[in-house]
Amino acid sequence: MTDTFVIVGGDAAGMAAASKARREDSDLEIVVFEKGEWVSYGACGLPYYVKGEIQSLEALVSVTPQEFREERDIDLRTGHEVVAIDPDERTVTAESDDGDVVQPYDHLLLATGAESVVPPIGGVDLEGVYTLGSMSDGKELREYVARARSDESFQQPDRGPACRYLEDCTGPVAVVGGGYIGIEMAEALAANDFEVHLFQRGDRVLKGFSEATSEAVAAHLRDQDVTLYLGSEVRELAGSGASDDSEGRSPSSNRTQSDDAGEVGAVVTETERVPVDMVLLGTGVRPRTALAENAGLEIGPTGAIATDAYRETSAPDVYAAGDCAEATHVVTGEPTYAPLALTANRHGRAVGQTVTGTPSEGGGVAGTAAVKAFDVEAARTGIIDPDEARKAGFDPVSETITAKSRAGYYPEGGDVTVTLTADRDSGRVLGASLVSEYGEGAVHRSHAVVGALEAGATVFELENYDLAYAPPFNTTWDPVLVAAKVLGGELR
Amino acid sequence: MTDTFVIVGGDAAGMAAASKARREDSDLEIVVFEKGEWVSYGACGLPYYVKGEIQSLEALVSVTPQEFREERDIDLRTGHEVVAIDPDERTVTAESDDGDVVQPYDHLLLATGAESVVPPIGGVDLEGVYTLGSMSDGKELREYVARARSDESFQQPDRGPACRYLEDCTGPVAVVGGGYIGIEMAEALAANDFEVHLFQRGDRVLKGFSEATSEAVAAHLRDQDVTLYLGSEVRELAGSGASDDSEGRSPSSNRTQSDDAGEVGAVVTETERVPVDMVLLGTGVRPRTALAENAGLEIGPTGAIATDAYRETSAPDVYAAGDCAEATHVVTGEPTYAPLALTANRHGRAVGQTVTGTPSEGGGVAGTAAVKAFDVEAARTGIIDPDEARKAGFDPVSETITAKSRAGYYPEGGDVTVTLTADRDSGRVLGASLVSEYGEGAVHRSHAVVGALEAGATVFELENYDLAYAPPFNTTWDPVLVAAKVLGGELR
Repeated sequence: MTDTFVIVGGDAAGMAAASKARREDSDLEIVVFEKGEWVSYGACGLPYYVKGEIQSLEALVSVTPQEFREERDIDLRTGHEVVAIDPDERTVTAESDDGDVVQPYDHLLLATGAESVVPPIGGVDLEGVYTLGSMSDGKELREYVARARSDESFQQPDRGPACRYLEDCTGPVAVVGGGYIGIEMAEALAANDFEVHLFQRGDRVLKGFSEATSEAVAAHLRDQDVTLYLGSEVRELAGSGASDDSEGRSPSSNRTQSDDAGEVGAVVTETERVPVDMVLLGTGVRPRTALAENAGLEIGPTGAIATDAYRETSAPDVYAAGDCAEATHVVTGEPTYAPLALTANRHGRAVGQTVTGTPSEGGGVAGTAAVKAFDVEAARTGIIDPDEARKAGFDPVSETITAKSRAGYYPEGGDVTVTLTADRDSGRVLGASLVSEYGEGAVHRSHAVVGALEAGATVFELENYDLAYAPPFNTTWDPVLVAAKVLGGELR
Repeated sequence: MTDTFVIVGGDAAGMAAASKARREDSDLEIVVFEKGEWVSYGACGLPYYVKGEIQSLEALVSVTPQEFREERDIDLRTGHEVVAIDPDERTVTAESDDGDVVQPYDHLLLATGAESVVPPIGGVDLEGVYTLGSMSDGKELREYVARARSDESFQQPDRGPACRYLEDCTGPVAVVGGGYIGIEMAEALAANDFEVHLFQRGDRVLKGFSEATSEAVAAHLRDQDVTLYLGSEVRELAGSGASDDSEGRSPSSNRTQSDDAGEVGAVVTETERVPVDMVLLGTGVRPRTALAENAGLEIGPTGAIATDAYRETSAPDVYAAGDCAEATHVVTGEPTYAPLALTANRHGRAVGQTVTGTPSEGGGVAGTAAVKAFDVEAARTGIIDPDEARKAGFDPVSETITAKSRAGYYPEGGDVTVTLTADRDSGRVLGASLVSEYGEGAVHRSHAVVGALEAGATVFELENYDLAYAPPFNTTWDPVLVAAKVLGGELR
């Protein structure tokens, strides 16, 4: 009798596991339960779909359900929501329109993903308040953009003059949250001529990056006519008060009661009331752990499902991978929660390998992330925050340098600003944050620092890395090496 | 009494050593002998000067002689050629127009660089035959371009239609050698509307790169109307036979005798005689070792000056760094010769640190190199050649993959082709070669592989590197990771 590998959740981690398991074992029974209709989609592409640069949601799907079923022989059951796991009986129970299914498993992978956090404030249920976590969220947002532009079939927009200079600009709209999603959506909305107001609770955008990166990105957002409200916690989303009143935008009313049945009309902070037509909540995600918790599985210190190095949970033969699960930080060796696409793919794939007989760890995570903000690109990896570093037992020292992206005499190019952090005593590289114009390589240059982090290298080793050089690509010392030299000098 | 640090050669290695030594020790006497007039210049920028993208040779100079003398208190003596070293007496003898100088030293650095190799064939002394190793070479070539274009003050050219479609194209010209210099000069000349013929002795261009990279670059060169002659050893450069005869270009004559007093008129291979007006020899460089040899210093197996990990030669307190010296290969641990700018800078700087009391190794070299060829970029690092790998005791396995440079659904982007090589038994990454359109990140992505090489990582470790991902920068698995996955699969 062949084993059965059951997977809960049909996105990155789940389908990577299913595909890898099938490649390794053509006999294995592979059953995937997905509560929605979409599988294996690139949620990271949703902002570009809303922006109008991608013309169909289908384009974000890397492998279709039909291909999984027919070409990869995977028993993919969309529209099936798993509602219970019984680790003792080794079964899961799934609900669908066709009734309940009790499915036995030999190996089980929980790949339930993450969900958008909705802040506990009034007005979040008003019409015109959106999140961007799922394909249907993306669809709704794009429909909103098309409606607001009175252009139901809009194609990729030309980025025209900033909205504030247009007679017929649309919006204003609010983005709440200055993380990746918030910034990518600010770009998507501004490109469609919306007047964009971005609210950030903390005192800088991209708080996981260095201050230098945050400042460079904030300055660029302002250049692109995004109005930034930093250190501005949103207290409430207020209703328009008159959803059929064209004056509804004006801050004429002192109402602080939101009208959950109406349309959103303003963002209210401690000091301001900013009239808006739409609100995008980009206030983070949290792991979907209810199913695991109800089954008695251990939840880790980060709030995500606890796993060992092979992504096995506290229940034997039950694995968890992707945005619902913890991972191990390459710098600290401690559990961390980094809900990003590559980790989900890598750990899903490793589980697929493990359950087919080749135990695979799938590697740690360095919290590496990249973002494009209009014409700027930024990346971060490892530990940059001094408090986080100290909590992990390090004595962090950081240096920030700005260097040319290509040889100084080369006719094109710009600046790259690199913040590099190391431990004072050991010299070990802890993390980095980089920012440059889009195309000038901040993101790909971060690959060098990831290499150093994965190896546990010191800043003295990093400064001697034999990185590629030619005038069209960098100065003789790549900006990463310049940062390592300066930080190394500080530590010597 | 303060020590005296004497440096022979005022380019990258020499001036990096001088500058670092001064920063570390404000009392040290630092004397630099440079036989020419130029110091601290970016020879790597010369092709772009000839191309016309850089308007003055001075732009290639990072620090002027005056700045070295006045701001860094370095006794820089241009126009001084060191003709002898006496390691027992600890002196060097330099000749200049003002007579000979005998200069005692406590520490000596040989940074004599490399010289262009001129192949042992007839006709290399004809007028119109150039190399590109020095600033004066660059000046002569640019003057040639300006003359040929009848445009003495030419500025950056517009890249117009290819020469073969023009009535008034200039040339034809030949580039002998398909390495970096040859390819960069093919671009520089083609951009100036020359009809370019490139002769390569071996069967592919960029022989230090992978075959896949060579083929991609060759195809692109052909797209740019460069005529490639692969596997074509040049036997002779023939004179025009009639330097004042406008028919001189035609291959009507069967002369095989070159006329050293005349102008070059044709490139002769075993099978062809290609009429040309100019020849650029890009046939490699060799270390300038005569001074070291005459002083009895050990020359290593590569033909360059032998050094230990601190760049100290066989004579105590005599160091050698840069294009005249050996380095240690990070993969093999064996001596290697990699005459490139970063190594020169790094090792010069390390010597400056060592002689001021902080012994510094300056790191190994991985043979990392980058090149732009028209609208394509390529990088290589480590060991790719199977014979070279086997000679170093490895059992090399390579895989070549092509992946998207950005998310498949992202509106821009191209392909990145990665060749990755690892040792079969240990899985250790040995090297890589990458190629993409210019701007699609082949070069900066190679940083990840350099990190793996420096760490001695396996391909199984590399495939788990937590590299930055977002749709505008890569697919979820960066092409480097895709290559690692495929090669890892092959090795498992």
